[in-house]
Amino acid sequence: MKALLVNNQPDEPVMEFGDYPTPEPEENELLVKVKSTALNRVDLLQKRGKYPVPEGETLILGLEMSGVVESVGKDVKKFRKGDRVFGLLGGGGYAEYTTIHEDLALSIHDFISFEEAAAIPEVFLTAYQALIWLGELKEGETVLIHAGASGVGTAAIQLAKHLKNAQIAVTAGSKEKLDLCRSLGSTLHINYKEQDFAEKIKERFGENSIDLIIDFVGSPYWKNNISSLGMDGRIVYLSMLGGAEVKEMDLVPILRKRLTIRGSTLRNRSLEYKKQLTEEFWNSTKDLFEKEKLTPVISAIVDWANVEKAHKMMSENKNAGKIILNGM
Amino acid sequence: MKALLVNNQPDEPVMEFGDYPTPEPEENELLVKVKSTALNRVDLLQKRGKYPVPEGETLILGLEMSGVVESVGKDVKKFRKGDRVFGLLGGGGYAEYTTIHEDLALSIHDFISFEEAAAIPEVFLTAYQALIWLGELKEGETVLIHAGASGVGTAAIQLAKHLKNAQIAVTAGSKEKLDLCRSLGSTLHINYKEQDFAEKIKERFGENSIDLIIDFVGSPYWKNNISSLGMDGRIVYLSMLGGAEVKEMDLVPILRKRLTIRGSTLRNRSLEYKKQLTEEFWNSTKDLFEKEKLTPVISAIVDWANVEKAHKMMSENKNAGKIILNGM
Repeated sequence: MKALLVNNQPDEPVMEFGDYPTPEPEENELLVKVKSTALNRVDLLQKRGKYPVPEGETLILGLEMSGVVESVGKDVKKFRKGDRVFGLLGGGGYAEYTTIHEDLALSIHDFISFEEAAAIPEVFLTAYQALIWLGELKEGETVLIHAGASGVGTAAIQLAKHLKNAQIAVTAGSKEKLDLCRSLGSTLHINYKEQDFAEKIKERFGENSIDLIIDFVGSPYWKNNISSLGMDGRIVYLSMLGGAEVKEMDLVPILRKRLTIRGSTLRNRSLEYKKQLTEEFWNSTKDLFEKEKLTPVISAIVDWANVEKAHKMMSENKNAGKIILNGM
Repeated sequence: MKALLVNNQPDEPVMEFGDYPTPEPEENELLVKVKSTALNRVDLLQKRGKYPVPEGETLILGLEMSGVVESVGKDVKKFRKGDRVFGLLGGGGYAEYTTIHEDLALSIHDFISFEEAAAIPEVFLTAYQALIWLGELKEGETVLIHAGASGVGTAAIQLAKHLKNAQIAVTAGSKEKLDLCRSLGSTLHINYKEQDFAEKIKERFGENSIDLIIDFVGSPYWKNNISSLGMDGRIVYLSMLGGAEVKEMDLVPILRKRLTIRGSTLRNRSLEYKKQLTEEFWNSTKDLFEKEKLTPVISAIVDWANVEKAHKMMSENKNAGKIILNGM
């Protein structure tokens, strides 16, 4: 099959089409002809050799896809050849064919296109895991979502609003990005380049007012995060793009405000965890996608041939929402 | 009624017997004639004005007690005059009489003395909350309990062993204290004055081997705690007796090992929370107390008249286990 392969120069990696053995589905897996895949920030790291690929996973990039079932393993019960599916991958989406466990695959209903379907798994499952499983967001709580216009950010805003009727503060670096967040349901919009988010939050919601923070930035926001949290507040770290070294940390608020600080990624979770997450997520959200309360935010749809352009767009933070690769 | 009252010199506080209005039980409360109460470290802070008393609570010290029901509020269903009870208080144990909500009171069965009963609530409920509710300890996990010979430490060792069959590492500052821990069921004994606990843990259980840490020390142990934790590891902070300022903290392991770091105290929790905790704790442990698998560890039983001596013993860390006040 055709696949996008990374050449062997980690400093200056280039992706090129090449031949690769078509994967064989295991007994519980589907072989899927890929229609669309989507970029994830980790793709940029992985192609430079800076993200170790979990054991047993393919070296081909691509953590999600949509497509059509080409064949099924002998024990597969839920799908058959010709079904339209989408889902989370351990890798392998940047290729003509990929395999997926039937319990990680979801049916594409008529109300979703292939491009939209490929834009859902990573950001919505990550956001669902962060808000509901790890952050234990409760009805009507106040949540702060950093990088609100990122893929996970846009999913988190929508889920917080429609699943938990939350008050939602977001940070982003431009008026356009903040406008996008507003259109998805956030209520306080902070341009981190111009404003101190802790000040703006105190003005709007009061001191110690945030119940849950979803953070991708890390150390630069540590102090302001901690000071914004209220009693029983939580931070969920999904990434630390701004650095991870905090010069002076005071542990007292952790005790006094009974805080919970946790980090997580989705990729290195067990198959069982991903199955349960996928099932619970889709049961909670399918109707909301159908009613268009939830919408995958797509920044650009790019032809496979232009994959380098798509990666550049992401590395320069030009996208607000997902970048889709199409048309292998 | 007689009560131990703190005079008004916060730098040099002295406790003296005085007259105080006998509390009136609310409709769901019991009035209890106190037989025994027990010291808690927070008593030392509170008498110096360094621990703000939660709103609505009495200024009299004493966070737990055992005694005999003297009278009951009009809606009380579970107890009547003459019943022997014990339980957690918001304060008020250092007195001849105290009140307690009937849902926070537990019956003293024949297998427990008044002194033993007064030694149970704070340390066992705190340890249960830390291990089970906040730390989510699972069957057979490996737990590190700092200050293993403290009141909460001795309770945590026993609960971790008998409820979850855990592997238990402890730290303490003397051979006698470590021997006490060993007798309660811990498996790795580290004298923090002589040994690096992270090294000892690595030797015995391997790298990244700890699932849950119960810590009272704070910043001095931060780095070793983080490095000892394995995937999905948790720290529960109950106190920060050694300080709370961490220099140059690296957030990366929080993300990479998917850590959870949380702080909690029991005292400022809601009545509803304490009721649920008390009920679940007693349902899980009553049989184990009866079979003497669980034992409150009592360091000394002191007459009320010698309360200052008892406080001195605690402030000098001379106790291993609870100090009981008796005989008002």
